[in-house]
Amino acid sequence: MEVALSNPKLISLAAGFVDTDSLPVEEVKAAIDVVLGHPQQAKLALQYGTTQGHPPLLDWIIQHVSQLDRIPSEKQTLSRKNVVLTTGSQQLLYLLSEMLLDTGDIVITESPSYFVYHSVLAGVGVNVLTVPMDNQGMDTSELRRLLERIERAGELHRVKLIYTVDYFQNPTGLTLSAARRQELIEIVHHIAQNSQHRILILEDAAYRELRYEGEELPSLRSLDHTGQHVIYAGTFSKPLSPGLKTGYAILPEDLLEPLLRLKGNHDFGSNHFSQHVLTQLVTSGAYSQHVEKLRTIYKEKRDVLLQSLEEHFGNLSGVSWTQPRGGMFVWMSLPIDMPTSPDSPFLKAALKEGVLYIPGEFGHVSDRGPAPTHEMRLSFGSATLEQIREGIRRLRQAFDSVPCGQQAATSLN
Amino acid sequence: MEVALSNPKLISLAAGFVDTDSLPVEEVKAAIDVVLGHPQQAKLALQYGTTQGHPPLLDWIIQHVSQLDRIPSEKQTLSRKNVVLTTGSQQLLYLLSEMLLDTGDIVITESPSYFVYHSVLAGVGVNVLTVPMDNQGMDTSELRRLLERIERAGELHRVKLIYTVDYFQNPTGLTLSAARRQELIEIVHHIAQNSQHRILILEDAAYRELRYEGEELPSLRSLDHTGQHVIYAGTFSKPLSPGLKTGYAILPEDLLEPLLRLKGNHDFGSNHFSQHVLTQLVTSGAYSQHVEKLRTIYKEKRDVLLQSLEEHFGNLSGVSWTQPRGGMFVWMSLPIDMPTSPDSPFLKAALKEGVLYIPGEFGHVSDRGPAPTHEMRLSFGSATLEQIREGIRRLRQAFDSVPCGQQAATSLN
Repeated sequence: MEVALSNPKLISLAAGFVDTDSLPVEEVKAAIDVVLGHPQQAKLALQYGTTQGHPPLLDWIIQHVSQLDRIPSEKQTLSRKNVVLTTGSQQLLYLLSEMLLDTGDIVITESPSYFVYHSVLAGVGVNVLTVPMDNQGMDTSELRRLLERIERAGELHRVKLIYTVDYFQNPTGLTLSAARRQELIEIVHHIAQNSQHRILILEDAAYRELRYEGEELPSLRSLDHTGQHVIYAGTFSKPLSPGLKTGYAILPEDLLEPLLRLKGNHDFGSNHFSQHVLTQLVTSGAYSQHVEKLRTIYKEKRDVLLQSLEEHFGNLSGVSWTQPRGGMFVWMSLPIDMPTSPDSPFLKAALKEGVLYIPGEFGHVSDRGPAPTHEMRLSFGSATLEQIREGIRRLRQAFDSVPCGQQAATSLN
Repeated sequence: MEVALSNPKLISLAAGFVDTDSLPVEEVKAAIDVVLGHPQQAKLALQYGTTQGHPPLLDWIIQHVSQLDRIPSEKQTLSRKNVVLTTGSQQLLYLLSEMLLDTGDIVITESPSYFVYHSVLAGVGVNVLTVPMDNQGMDTSELRRLLERIERAGELHRVKLIYTVDYFQNPTGLTLSAARRQELIEIVHHIAQNSQHRILILEDAAYRELRYEGEELPSLRSLDHTGQHVIYAGTFSKPLSPGLKTGYAILPEDLLEPLLRLKGNHDFGSNHFSQHVLTQLVTSGAYSQHVEKLRTIYKEKRDVLLQSLEEHFGNLSGVSWTQPRGGMFVWMSLPIDMPTSPDSPFLKAALKEGVLYIPGEFGHVSDRGPAPTHEMRLSFGSATLEQIREGIRRLRQAFDSVPCGQQAATSLN
């Protein structure tokens, strides 16, 4: 395995890296020239910042997310008391887990969900319960039933958080539909009214701006008219540059102070220089232009991935995949008797052919029985168009080289 | 108080900020020109990095700290398995506390010690015990007696960590002497041999390179020939730029994997762009030149602070202060009946005069009886020479305006 992974010709459809060729080198250079060109600003950028983050960037974030949600400025209710910058959105996920969750608490996520967050939750010792997804995202009817079961068991007070990657989800590429968004908000409002229990929704919108088709859907945050239930997690990593490692949260006002106290202990503020560079990038308009450019680039990569899958796997029964409208992931299912696990014949065959994916079971927890083992996450983030084409061709070769896969293929032809 | 703090003419001898005028704007600009000037490197810098940090910077850190410790290359035992980059050294302090300490454990620190770290320790619920300091730093005879008492109480297994800021300490400016360094290492070796219990020393060397006189003292890490007992915490914030927010640890090899697992959950890697910029700054020689320049600048500020204290407080009985050979802090004691606490007449008088300090009690815990309340930390980090002169003049005016201070002054004249 180690030999295969060190193969320089290995095509990785596994990594969550962003597209390397389109990283905004010139834009960052121009922004830094401005930041370091003004002696006063240059010195501020190289000095300590605050735990919360650079105020002009906080202001821009409020304005930007409100624009995405088409909130007219006269209806704007957010202020600097609702926003904080973090070391990527991963730090936000960690801080919130530490702040909000105790051992034995319940967190509800989609199934499958973002596996790195599972690892954070495992560290806290919470009970992760999952809700299945379909083409409209998290199945809110199933969520209702789950919450009713929990309530009957007298455990509703333990449900602290519902975690959803609601735009072009990692790992499936699926998006929560407009109707389901309303339902999800209604569910937590209903519980707040009837049981005086606040369930928070952690809305991980990391991929939101990488939208290639379909309408812009309102955030859960914008639908929560109480302003009490949604923590919106955004990031500059996916739509701009992971190297600048800056994420942000928009959150209910009462959560800001405890979050800042904890972040004060963690690092008393994320990288300040990057915050100044980002402020210049967003206020100059370079950020918006770059996001537009990325949409074109990733759309083409998505299209090539979907076409390649159709070409190489379209004739196989028991094989299916999602059709993401944004983001950088496709979720693929093989026949149920063809495991994709780390020690599976299929993964070994894929590595032998020179292609790598993320085994789907990493995205599952086993709260509803054994996790499915025949799925995988394919990323079109960092691979080039040619690598995507060749990678899927190799994946089919791997499929054909595994006995069970050959059977499945033969049975259809 | 809020009014006084918002006074634009307020001179702050409180903040731990670094000198603003000398921040390396041109050096950072030149380094970024190189990083962003090579398309390949530029894209690497803007992409995700690893949790551990950029390998060339890890290598430089090993070489750099070994040079400070005058370890010949043939005696070098460190490798990349001993080093990690963090979001400032604060993140390292937090990660280590989370990883090594449980509620009820004992951490031993100097008295006084770095108050921000006390806040981290309070969050973990550990028992902080302190050892007094004198002009040679932590009193290791007192440390021995403390450990003997703990052992007799059957609690030695709970002592997990000894935390020391052993170069130009925050907040006192005091340095652990060469003889005490040897003793401290002997103490933990002795306990390891006799009680099979590993006590780790967290050596916070944040101010080490800001040395204005006296010889370069070997790090505790270099004196620990077992390589098992010392975690050395360094940073680029003090000797270069806090805005680049990068610290590092050199640590026993067995601690690396658990630390990286935890840091993976926290953020899967600190700001990658800053790591590339720093790599260029250190390999070009700009870093070393800048540290040399800073030494001259801070030495003058220290000299002006000490001269001003002599001028304005030299004739007062019961008033004394430390003579730091580096760093950015002087520790001052007023007569024991002149409290410097946040609600004290002296602090109010100081704010009225337009000068601010850190009350000394923030640096103390009350394990050995009530914390002293008549001390203060004076910083010469960010204030200009003129502000330092004027600030100390105002501090004496404040002193004279408080009844007890006038008495003390009168009694001597």
